Amino acid sequence: MSERVTPQSEDYAGWYNDIVQKAELADYSPVRGCMVIMPYGYTLWENIQAGLDRRFKETGHVNAYFPLFIPESFIKKEAEHVEGFAPELAVVTHGGGKKLEEALVVRPTSETIIGHMYAKWVHSYRDLPLLINQWANVVRWEMRTRLFLRTTEFLWQEGHTAHATAQEAQEETLQMLEVYADFAVNDAAIPVIKGRKSKSETFPGAVNSYTIEAMMGNKWALQAGTSHFLGQTFAKAFDIKFLDENNQLEYAWTTSWGVSTRMVGAVIMTHGDDQGLILPPVLAPHQVVVVPIWRQEEQKQAVLEAVKSVKAALADAGIRCHIDDREGQTPGWKFNHWEMKGVPLRIEIGPRDVAQKQVVLARRDVAGKAGKSAVPIDGLARAVSDTLAAIQAHMLDKATRFRDENTHEAKDLEALKTITADGWARAWWCGEEACEANIKERVREQAGIPITTRCIPVEQPGGKGVCVGCGKKATEQAIFGRAY
Amino acid sequence: MSERVTPQSEDYAGWYNDIVQKAELADYSPVRGCMVIMPYGYTLWENIQAGLDRRFKETGHVNAYFPLFIPESFIKKEAEHVEGFAPELAVVTHGGGKKLEEALVVRPTSETIIGHMYAKWVHSYRDLPLLINQWANVVRWEMRTRLFLRTTEFLWQEGHTAHATAQEAQEETLQMLEVYADFAVNDAAIPVIKGRKSKSETFPGAVNSYTIEAMMGNKWALQAGTSHFLGQTFAKAFDIKFLDENNQLEYAWTTSWGVSTRMVGAVIMTHGDDQGLILPPVLAPHQVVVVPIWRQEEQKQAVLEAVKSVKAALADAGIRCHIDDREGQTPGWKFNHWEMKGVPLRIEIGPRDVAQKQVVLARRDVAGKAGKSAVPIDGLARAVSDTLAAIQAHMLDKATRFRDENTHEAKDLEALKTITADGWARAWWCGEEACEANIKERVREQAGIPITTRCIPVEQPGGKGVCVGCGKKATEQAIFGRAY
Repeated sequence: MSERVTPQSEDYAGWYNDIVQKAELADYSPVRGCMVIMPYGYTLWENIQAGLDRRFKETGHVNAYFPLFIPESFIKKEAEHVEGFAPELAVVTHGGGKKLEEALVVRPTSETIIGHMYAKWVHSYRDLPLLINQWANVVRWEMRTRLFLRTTEFLWQEGHTAHATAQEAQEETLQMLEVYADFAVNDAAIPVIKGRKSKSETFPGAVNSYTIEAMMGNKWALQAGTSHFLGQTFAKAFDIKFLDENNQLEYAWTTSWGVSTRMVGAVIMTHGDDQGLILPPVLAPHQVVVVPIWRQEEQKQAVLEAVKSVKAALADAGIRCHIDDREGQTPGWKFNHWEMKGVPLRIEIGPRDVAQKQVVLARRDVAGKAGKSAVPIDGLARAVSDTLAAIQAHMLDKATRFRDENTHEAKDLEALKTITADGWARAWWCGEEACEANIKERVREQAGIPITTRCIPVEQPGGKGVCVGCGKKATEQAIFGRAY
Repeated sequence: MSERVTPQSEDYAGWYNDIVQKAELADYSPVRGCMVIMPYGYTLWENIQAGLDRRFKETGHVNAYFPLFIPESFIKKEAEHVEGFAPELAVVTHGGGKKLEEALVVRPTSETIIGHMYAKWVHSYRDLPLLINQWANVVRWEMRTRLFLRTTEFLWQEGHTAHATAQEAQEETLQMLEVYADFAVNDAAIPVIKGRKSKSETFPGAVNSYTIEAMMGNKWALQAGTSHFLGQTFAKAFDIKFLDENNQLEYAWTTSWGVSTRMVGAVIMTHGDDQGLILPPVLAPHQVVVVPIWRQEEQKQAVLEAVKSVKAALADAGIRCHIDDREGQTPGWKFNHWEMKGVPLRIEIGPRDVAQKQVVLARRDVAGKAGKSAVPIDGLARAVSDTLAAIQAHMLDKATRFRDENTHEAKDLEALKTITADGWARAWWCGEEACEANIKERVREQAGIPITTRCIPVEQPGGKGVCVGCGKKATEQAIFGRAY
């Protein structure tokens, strides 16, 4: 832990890799592109899971589990889908010592196998809607991998729903986009733009894909969750049919939506600084770390007793609190250690604090003296709760301000190049695929920036404008920027 | 749901398959040997997970996640391990459209890859113990599969710990056996025998394997969880070394332990009857189902209002309650439906009940009138809580009595044959592998019963006896029986 972290300003990617490892979130594995999620990182993921799972259940969804393996022929049933995923597949050719008659694909996503099961389960409109989510691992053979951001195997949830009408499926798609945004904003303190993907960025097989886009500390975009309206594409490929109220046989309308361990990367890059992680209190494995401080052996007992009673008071209030009473490490070393791990609030308790019946709070989100305050032990749990809430709010504010300060409207292609060199551009856009390709090509060639259309935000300014790419009339603005 | 369930007495295996599907716990998938865990079955699994995970955390363990894929060479590093698992492996030979240089095995269990990571993480005695658990899917290419009991892919947790001393690792092994037994008895209402596996039944690579063995309704045994003391086997194969307090380089001592979705099968076969599942209240997805009953339309509103207030009162008390107010199904149909699904307690509310400010409780574990009682709406939550506790206790009692009534001491091989034809035999046994093989062979040849040594119970009668197989002196008794 004593080694230096690469500063963000020097090498952002290097900073990210350092943080992931020094904060013990994840480690490289001996398997190409696969990561090991270490206990601290996994606990963060468990807290992300809990926040999402609660929201899924509140909106009427249930969890289930579908097979890891998918017959190769299933993937090929939907033309766009196979085109999108074929290059990324891991294939099992042998099982139980024998070559398989049909190779099995390790699921890259489960629309196909779930579509097959839904066709078996759905007969009548009374069987709809089917509102199922799955927590699972998936595999996509990625060429360049980055811990949490792009790994060959990753963990995620994938919701798959089937409905009797297009409208209901569209409402579900947007409801889940809302659920994702609510989680990102309120639990992860990550401000996100909700929007529709352009055609070229749409999920293979979907009619429309929606996304939540977050701005990272280097002003690149990260797609942090997606929700797809699949129309009848998969219903037709897998024969999900039902008798409607008029006894007519109809194809169902389906959706799918997912958030993955990538969300951990979003948390790291939205909030972290050169001292390490900064975790939002709602998701932090330890919301509070208590560091007892003493010089002479005779001070130790009184300090440790105060620590114990503080821990008990905080635990009673439902605050996740960790005591670092290791001997052989200095308080200063421990401060750095837990700052690296992003614990939102540190409590220091020394002999003088014990005598004065107080403790010192030190906020991770506010550096130096400004973040420190002495607080009476009496009523501490309340003060800590309030401080954690203030930290959570401050982190969201700060990230929102950062994003807004680094997002600008681009009136023309020149402005688009300048703005996307160091932030996001909002611009009127016609929505045409050819125009989009042209914009990307020109910005890349002329400014060396590999931008993409991040999304067409759900919230639009209204009115009309002139397309930043082709100059035609445009009714919507889009967000452009570099992305992970 | 109207179709008949195969009675247990007619065909136990047929009964089991019927229940799994009619209670909508799981379904067959198009992938050989892989199951789909349906929402109702998955919720049961989530409750099993919660009960285990809480106990793991209370005993100081943390969760993490290791890769799905294991390099083929890893599996081969430990001779017994590869011998045990090689015939069951699924192998990925292609990724991203190319043949892989080294094939990857889909994990059948993770001692090898976790051993590799532990070698990287452990340097000093200060890094020990490592107490990590993983919730994951694993794949073993099984020839004959049965939903939940033996599937090619299954879900489980696998704990993997590393310690500085043999004693500490042995204590951990037995502690986790205790945790499993505590869960089985108190949450699943499944009485289990804790015991050591014979050498031939020991996990490939372990020094000792411990098991919890449960008796199913057909008097076969089911191994419901295992805990292995791995000695230094995997530490040596994967080079997990640490500097001890005297600065000596030592190999660590490791353990592993697991419970899988097989536990769902144990719940089904311990408690179920010809009307369907019977779920222990602690694990049941719905602890209570409320069925409103009315004949005339004018009765409906008053009944539904009473139902709503009952639901609110139960939810406030933390009771998982489901209302079945579907129209178009008769109360009788609903009774059968929820009996099939094993809901521990049904509440019936009709117009007369509303008038008398009461409801009718009907216990799933006590058939007919004996299980029914009228209870005042005032104070209902308390009465329901008490009844659920009584059901939980009664289910454990009943299963314990059943097991004890079907376990007998066998003095000689003749008795062993008679007893294992319809139950478990306890018998003095010398512990020799050759003797065990001989016992199994003779019982199979002479009585047609494929028995196995289930375990050498931790709790022994004391004293000595004569080995049931070879007549030598024996200091321990073993349990013999047919098993899944």
